[in-house]
Amino acid sequence: MNISKRGLEIQASPIRKLKPFADKAKERGIQVYFINIGQPDIPTPHAVWEAFSRSGEEVLSYGPAQGFVELRRAIADYFKNYKIPIHEDNVIITIGGSEAIHFAFSVVADPGEEILVPEPFYTNYNGYAAFASVNIVPVPMTVETGFRLPPIDEIEAKITPKTKAILLCSPNNPTGTVYTQEELERIKGLIQKHDLFLISDEVYKEFVYDGIRHKSVLEFEGIKDRTIVIDSISKRFSCCGARIGAVITHNDKVYQSILKFAQARLCPPTMEQKAALAAYRMDPDYFSEIRKEYQKRRDVLFEGLKDIPGITIHKPQGAFYIIVRLPIKDSEHFVQWMLTDFSLDNQTVMVAPAQGFYSTPNKGRDEVRIAYVLKEEDLRRAIHVLKEGLKKYRSIF
Amino acid sequence: MNISKRGLEIQASPIRKLKPFADKAKERGIQVYFINIGQPDIPTPHAVWEAFSRSGEEVLSYGPAQGFVELRRAIADYFKNYKIPIHEDNVIITIGGSEAIHFAFSVVADPGEEILVPEPFYTNYNGYAAFASVNIVPVPMTVETGFRLPPIDEIEAKITPKTKAILLCSPNNPTGTVYTQEELERIKGLIQKHDLFLISDEVYKEFVYDGIRHKSVLEFEGIKDRTIVIDSISKRFSCCGARIGAVITHNDKVYQSILKFAQARLCPPTMEQKAALAAYRMDPDYFSEIRKEYQKRRDVLFEGLKDIPGITIHKPQGAFYIIVRLPIKDSEHFVQWMLTDFSLDNQTVMVAPAQGFYSTPNKGRDEVRIAYVLKEEDLRRAIHVLKEGLKKYRSIF
Repeated sequence: MNISKRGLEIQASPIRKLKPFADKAKERGIQVYFINIGQPDIPTPHAVWEAFSRSGEEVLSYGPAQGFVELRRAIADYFKNYKIPIHEDNVIITIGGSEAIHFAFSVVADPGEEILVPEPFYTNYNGYAAFASVNIVPVPMTVETGFRLPPIDEIEAKITPKTKAILLCSPNNPTGTVYTQEELERIKGLIQKHDLFLISDEVYKEFVYDGIRHKSVLEFEGIKDRTIVIDSISKRFSCCGARIGAVITHNDKVYQSILKFAQARLCPPTMEQKAALAAYRMDPDYFSEIRKEYQKRRDVLFEGLKDIPGITIHKPQGAFYIIVRLPIKDSEHFVQWMLTDFSLDNQTVMVAPAQGFYSTPNKGRDEVRIAYVLKEEDLRRAIHVLKEGLKKYRSIF
Repeated sequence: MNISKRGLEIQASPIRKLKPFADKAKERGIQVYFINIGQPDIPTPHAVWEAFSRSGEEVLSYGPAQGFVELRRAIADYFKNYKIPIHEDNVIITIGGSEAIHFAFSVVADPGEEILVPEPFYTNYNGYAAFASVNIVPVPMTVETGFRLPPIDEIEAKITPKTKAILLCSPNNPTGTVYTQEELERIKGLIQKHDLFLISDEVYKEFVYDGIRHKSVLEFEGIKDRTIVIDSISKRFSCCGARIGAVITHNDKVYQSILKFAQARLCPPTMEQKAALAAYRMDPDYFSEIRKEYQKRRDVLFEGLKDIPGITIHKPQGAFYIIVRLPIKDSEHFVQWMLTDFSLDNQTVMVAPAQGFYSTPNKGRDEVRIAYVLKEEDLRRAIHVLKEGLKKYRSIF
């Protein structure tokens, strides 16, 4: 009676592994600034909370497997605001962007097949790959080149007969990079040449700064039937706990297969879909304030970090993350030390060791990911505490 | 660019396939009695609705991957009421019983490995097996023997080196059978002898009639570390749309692996967990009324059906389903015909063709599953309409 290989091989969340040290720091009365995970502090819109209070139903019953039509229509309308024409029947509501990833992996690949992903990448791609017994093949990027996509031949060298898809995430978690039209065209060429699917994680769509416009792969001609977009309301409306996402595809076979996966799990949560609908019905102006807020935070973080002696840093254009290389050997040790051994006026900081965002062994060990999810004043203080911690750490190790 | 084998092979929900015919019947002004799916009409408890209205938080944020400790504790307490001692750390909250099934399948079996399931069985086991690339091996049962478990050698004959677990569902969906202590002991022996896991779907735990006491596999000594229980609030509290379930296990390796699967999808929906907590905090007397109501319905249905000429029927002891064999050749055709060609005083009935509950080809083609999820008066009328429909159908085909 052994548990499955996939059950053994799936990686524990590297961030959650360190959580107990943060809890213990708090128990000792130390205030911890959490800039390790993408849990924004932006209040969830009033309309969302209100939707939970209004039900009008007597029975909290199953909804359709693909999600309520009203919500699918609202998502189609939302894309129309970006001049991206999709139909409600291109949308399947998922239980968070997480389930959208799982569906996308499972529909393009069978066990043992491969999906190419520029590295570093969102940790949970690894989790879902193990869960679905699919292999992620990393395509290395570096902080020195601002985590831009590598030249075409470096990507192409990773393609094998087992490769079924390339997965892009833009704006990128964990790097904050927003891919340019040219970079996306490069991938488009490979997708067509090698007969692949393109999975595009665009959950940070709104979070682009410096006047850059985010380009969705849904806007590309010629690969419409190859494209599977992963979407989520978690960050868009500060609704992480709602677990509502979506898969968007123009490929009817993909849609029908995902629908069957969706039928197996019956439906997404009913009340959370109503809450999501309320969020989508808000004025689109909602985002401009939030975008301004995050751009300010990005600037505060970048300016605050860039002069750290020995740091390697790039300026992110989107999402709310940055990966920086620090003059340390083992970021997991550093992050843990900050929680167990350091405090400044009773405060410390938790960042994320970057190793968890790499699948190539030993990569990212001198890097950390920082999420700028705190308001300016707290963020400034967190940066100061982090810098002082780093100084002390380097004087010891 | 082909979609995956699992994406092609996963079976479309046979019930949902017929749904459009029901929709068209409704469009023609015909009232359809839906006794095809397990969507109870019992009002969702007031406490659940109230929990959705009270939030007190500003940000709808992520919760822990294993679910809120308060809810896990409430579930442990609930089991204690049944004199089954489990600890909150034996519980992982899942997104519906559905996800619990998926986690259980994935933790015991790798792609290509096998799980034995007495047949007929809940359709979505098939869906999750395809999704997880695991093979379900059916162990045939029949209506003539009341869908009791077959003799030990018939079950044992199905065990191969690829077999990793036996999956039981009691009270059973779709048969309504509640396994006896002796039947469970039989399975326990096989589990031990062949070094297997026992996955036990007990989501209908409360729905047992005639004074029978449901026996949980958690009560069995000697297989504690082999047991994985699937649980859900959907039927228990008439909260199908909440999508809150649980996995319960005393095996720490199983727990840790499932926790990693759970971490990949971040967390179950936050508000729905609060609603579930409110449900668990209700007086346990809540169930006795509901049990009485369902037992009455079961009796009405059984008495109403048993005299149909040519019917083969057994009296179910639990859940709210029955599988009956009708004097017809193709129940899918019959169910569709009832929706497209028949009505009595502008009313018709939708039942579920039983084929979807079998994985053995051609089995169940002359059977239907009926869910007694309507109140007595409606159920009586539905039975009458069904009988008249069947009479007419047999006069034509």
